Amino acid sequence: MKCNAIAIVGLGLIGGSLLKALQGFDSAVFYGIDTNEETLAEAGSLGLIHPERDTEKILRTADVVIICLSPELTPDFINRHQFKKEALVTDVCGIKQEVYRRISKPEVRFIGGHPMAGKEASGFSASEKTLFQNASYLLTPDMDSLPEHVELLKRMAQYIGCRETVITTPEQHDRMIAYTSQLMHVVAVALCDSKRLDKAKSFSAGSLRDCTRVAKLDSRLWTQLFMQNKAELACCIDEFEKSLQALKGYLTAEDEEGLESFLKQASERKMKFLA
Amino acid sequence: MKCNAIAIVGLGLIGGSLLKALQGFDSAVFYGIDTNEETLAEAGSLGLIHPERDTEKILRTADVVIICLSPELTPDFINRHQFKKEALVTDVCGIKQEVYRRISKPEVRFIGGHPMAGKEASGFSASEKTLFQNASYLLTPDMDSLPEHVELLKRMAQYIGCRETVITTPEQHDRMIAYTSQLMHVVAVALCDSKRLDKAKSFSAGSLRDCTRVAKLDSRLWTQLFMQNKAELACCIDEFEKSLQALKGYLTAEDEEGLESFLKQASERKMKFLA
Repeated sequence: MKCNAIAIVGLGLIGGSLLKALQGFDSAVFYGIDTNEETLAEAGSLGLIHPERDTEKILRTADVVIICLSPELTPDFINRHQFKKEALVTDVCGIKQEVYRRISKPEVRFIGGHPMAGKEASGFSASEKTLFQNASYLLTPDMDSLPEHVELLKRMAQYIGCRETVITTPEQHDRMIAYTSQLMHVVAVALCDSKRLDKAKSFSAGSLRDCTRVAKLDSRLWTQLFMQNKAELACCIDEFEKSLQALKGYLTAEDEEGLESFLKQASERKMKFLA
Repeated sequence: MKCNAIAIVGLGLIGGSLLKALQGFDSAVFYGIDTNEETLAEAGSLGLIHPERDTEKILRTADVVIICLSPELTPDFINRHQFKKEALVTDVCGIKQEVYRRISKPEVRFIGGHPMAGKEASGFSASEKTLFQNASYLLTPDMDSLPEHVELLKRMAQYIGCRETVITTPEQHDRMIAYTSQLMHVVAVALCDSKRLDKAKSFSAGSLRDCTRVAKLDSRLWTQLFMQNKAELACCIDEFEKSLQALKGYLTAEDEEGLESFLKQASERKMKFLA
């Protein structure tokens, strides 16, 4: 399937980066939809989007609609608008089951998407076309999804520089993400919930910088992401606490051998992951 | 104080990097001491060290001896060797109180040092002269330390590219490091103590990479570092667990407002740290 018109809804960090990275794809016309007029004007002046600003007109034209809104707003947008017949509608939310659950229009050809990329800055001004280089693009099509839609999304992911496309289910997506992304953010935030951080600057190096990098986050967005996956995330936190307690147990028992073997095993697991 | 001869004991990642970064300092002659003949031969063939290989001869000559061994071996080396009278002896251990406690020769002019730099690789082959760029160099002189020794160490730190030298006490050093470095390593290791990591590759991005970067560690070295600071580290782990539990509490109570405010506060603390 070739697409002639692509609409991107929400030109923030992810939407703006997709808009930049997708330029030239299938020689499609790009449309931008955003509540911020200045962002649209900027994207327009950069020649990234068509001058059309009427949302309903755009949605009647677009073969592909990429919704780059928060998990709260994404289903709302889908439920409140009309799309072109057989148009592919996709999103970029970091959570999938709740997004599917909240969509009340089964006729919409929705395929969940999640490009695993980001940075500690937001908005169109932070967007960049190289954001997805070497990232993984997760997709959650179901039995009703059109194969040509899935193929199109795979081509798009490749075009923007992703290293791989992973086909998964919303359930599996949310289970994996609870650990790979959400727990990391929880840990970074919890590490920064300390008065010790205020005096740490002169005593810190790379480990503090890296372990807490993602603590500079959009608290509203991450509250939604955490809440919409709370059971699985709480389970990840519990498992992590058990690991922490095991390590602390060796420490307080002065069990050097136990501690060293614990560190070695975790370190080896990390090396296997990197391999 | 100008120094004519500098001996570096242990040409691993830190010792090798110091050797490379210090070349040219005060036009000093550099001597290398290492149990590995190949490492000495390599450093020699690179023109980084004087051909002298006799440890006792070297130590009778050196005005400055930088011991780049583990916390276990550092006091041993000091206790077992004779140094030139009034020579400055320093180390690079990530822990300070225990090193001081284990040194049984009060006549040695020892000043603890800790350049806050490293990477997830070890040995002379991983060493590089830019390792200390923009790092903080911690020093723990006491009332008996010669001011000219402290000044010399400050000049050395500046010469190798450190952004600042911090004068502190062994107690304060160990208290700060428990959080800024050790807790970060504990967290990274505990995050990798999970079967979830084995399947995470395709579902992971920058947060997992960065939060677990330092989990690839020298388990023997870090066992020593943790054990020699166990009370303070256990205290840091306890505090961190409380933060984790607070966050999890908001999650399980479905208290969105509480969670968002928790995330916001930690995020702002991180931004203040970065500023």
